[in-house]
Amino acid sequence: MLAQFTKRVPEVLEWLATFGADPEGGVTRLLYTDAWLQAQQALAAIMQELGLEPKYDAVGNLYGKLQGINPELKPVLTGSHIDTVKNGGKYDGAYGVIASMLALGYLKAAFGAPKRTLEVVSFCEEEGSRFPLTFWGSGHVTGVHQMEAAATIADREGITLLDAMQRAGFTGGQGDSASRNDLGAYIEIHIEQGSVLEYNGKQIGIVTAIVGQKRLTVRVLGKANHAGTTPMTMRRDALAGAAEMVALTEKLALEEGDPLVATVGKLEVKQGTSNVVPGEVEFTLDIRHTDESKLQTFCTNLLTKLEEIAMRRELDIQSVEHLSVSPVVMHSGISAEIESICQDQGFKGMKLPSGAGHDAQLFGAVCPTALIFVPSRGGLSHNPEELTSAEDLAAGFQTLVQLLYQYGYGGKADEIL
Amino acid sequence: MLAQFTKRVPEVLEWLATFGADPEGGVTRLLYTDAWLQAQQALAAIMQELGLEPKYDAVGNLYGKLQGINPELKPVLTGSHIDTVKNGGKYDGAYGVIASMLALGYLKAAFGAPKRTLEVVSFCEEEGSRFPLTFWGSGHVTGVHQMEAAATIADREGITLLDAMQRAGFTGGQGDSASRNDLGAYIEIHIEQGSVLEYNGKQIGIVTAIVGQKRLTVRVLGKANHAGTTPMTMRRDALAGAAEMVALTEKLALEEGDPLVATVGKLEVKQGTSNVVPGEVEFTLDIRHTDESKLQTFCTNLLTKLEEIAMRRELDIQSVEHLSVSPVVMHSGISAEIESICQDQGFKGMKLPSGAGHDAQLFGAVCPTALIFVPSRGGLSHNPEELTSAEDLAAGFQTLVQLLYQYGYGGKADEIL
Repeated sequence: MLAQFTKRVPEVLEWLATFGADPEGGVTRLLYTDAWLQAQQALAAIMQELGLEPKYDAVGNLYGKLQGINPELKPVLTGSHIDTVKNGGKYDGAYGVIASMLALGYLKAAFGAPKRTLEVVSFCEEEGSRFPLTFWGSGHVTGVHQMEAAATIADREGITLLDAMQRAGFTGGQGDSASRNDLGAYIEIHIEQGSVLEYNGKQIGIVTAIVGQKRLTVRVLGKANHAGTTPMTMRRDALAGAAEMVALTEKLALEEGDPLVATVGKLEVKQGTSNVVPGEVEFTLDIRHTDESKLQTFCTNLLTKLEEIAMRRELDIQSVEHLSVSPVVMHSGISAEIESICQDQGFKGMKLPSGAGHDAQLFGAVCPTALIFVPSRGGLSHNPEELTSAEDLAAGFQTLVQLLYQYGYGGKADEIL
Repeated sequence: MLAQFTKRVPEVLEWLATFGADPEGGVTRLLYTDAWLQAQQALAAIMQELGLEPKYDAVGNLYGKLQGINPELKPVLTGSHIDTVKNGGKYDGAYGVIASMLALGYLKAAFGAPKRTLEVVSFCEEEGSRFPLTFWGSGHVTGVHQMEAAATIADREGITLLDAMQRAGFTGGQGDSASRNDLGAYIEIHIEQGSVLEYNGKQIGIVTAIVGQKRLTVRVLGKANHAGTTPMTMRRDALAGAAEMVALTEKLALEEGDPLVATVGKLEVKQGTSNVVPGEVEFTLDIRHTDESKLQTFCTNLLTKLEEIAMRRELDIQSVEHLSVSPVVMHSGISAEIESICQDQGFKGMKLPSGAGHDAQLFGAVCPTALIFVPSRGGLSHNPEELTSAEDLAAGFQTLVQLLYQYGYGGKADEIL
């Protein structure tokens, strides 16, 4: 029977990808659009078929439930998100929802009612693709988002989040009606969106922590000058200074080593012309680490050194921090259980940090949380070319099944979470 | 009487700046426009007043002549250009034309007919601001430009150079009717457009050579990747590579030393986003030197080293050369004469290369050529804020007067050039 359910995972993934399918390939399911609503309804129908009592909350998160026998044991929630980026792939979010739903369907069919209630969730939104905010789904469940935001935030066509939600049939409810404070644990399975598993020849990633992140903009001001008539020693070249800063950022990040990453993704020479010494450059910094204090120390040290470069070159420098997110550590007990399942099942697993954000990071502060990765071919995500092999989808699914079995029926079912 | 003529220099400069004056300040006199034509006519009127027999050639270069007594001595030509960039300053080009014209006016008034014919020229075009070509004026005189180009080159409104020229009243003539092969020497005075004189506290720049120049575009290709999920050691970051290249360009240029300059004026991260490791970067290189072989050696060596950086980082690199102009050495005999005039007159002079292009560079291949600079405040040019102090304008004018006296009436008048 496990084989049958395992086989359904890629089938349901392909089928779900028809909701919001783009003509040229890829999937676009933005929050509260028709494609999105039809996909949630399609998932609800499968939950119904599997006997999982589908139910929406006030903002459109879709739950399925496998009722446990012992009401004193807090439920374990598993799932991911249904929305996509514009012209995204079939796997990001969807794989987690489908694997979780089919895992509960299998467990119900094979073992009947668990000791502990197991629930699947298809979060309404995680990507931030339609409205300028992220985690609208899991943020409500964990009490991070409130309804107040909905009236003031609008998409590119000027439709507010509140309007869009109500048009899709969701009231938003009163106060924090979508929040949950009864959860025993949250478990998510997701594609890696990187190539660490592929590079290391592994099938299962056991996420140790979701990185904290800082995003900054750095502005470097020198003096625009004639490229022919200004001797090298008389220049205050903003780009030469910025280049030294970019090179130093990479050097320090390599010295610090994994799991720190530091990226200059965008760099603009203002009014750049081939025969003018650049007077102004602006670039971004994206710095991530699983350890909050190491992240902070790295950033402080880096900025000090960038200022030294600026001072030595007689340049002005200004930096603005746009985003600061703390790292979230995954639960060591559940992670150890995943590791042991991999050994038992013969799946090649490895521990790794998550460099990308996930719904799981919002649960880290609320309850024990675990995050499982399966490989992304070529590290691709947010892309129609997103691909995870059927074999890897199966390994991830069966790992999740075993894990939920342990917490629902097996050795961990009575454990207080 | 010299004092009177010296005083006229800034007066005529201010007055000429009213032709093509921009409402917000600055001057725009594009080739063959009404403002340009009126300015040439205004200069012709002053030449007439000074007794310099004004005359246009077939493309609109305006000459004034002070006829010499000995027809066997080749004439010395002095001048600069009348056109400006869009919203340029009052001094670039105009100073050289006005100083030359008033110098001849003074010499005629003070000393009568010279032994050798002295001529002033107001070239029709140097900047390349209206049509995509430069040196339309001096290029005809030196035989570099032919009329063929005029029918195919158009301005942004689709008006061909030929049309514009004919509308302004110039025929273009037959063959190379505007070319001159009778010249003994060409002497130009111009603002520096840099701040070397200002920085060194000098009034007169004696240009040793006009730099040769190479312009290239360099394209660096890596692999775009997720900034969170791609460890530092697994990246092929096009921007980190380009930053190392920009830094190396500056380092090698500083090691090579004056007069070499190397500039990355433009750098673009293709599809740059703060949370994506850059996959493609394009930047420009502008490299100048007064010595052709040193320029070539530097470029070859630099490109080899950039390729090494690319190879080490597993990046692809492509470079395309867009422009290659040879250096032009100024005449050592005339330059020595300028130096000696500075000493006699008590003007603080210094030798320096010209990093910018000038009409003088076209004459270098045709006849002995000299170029004199006066300071540009703050190094500014092509800018409404362009400024040279009245004192520096006077020093430059009087240096030119003395030089033309030497070659027209004095110790150098009989010299075969």
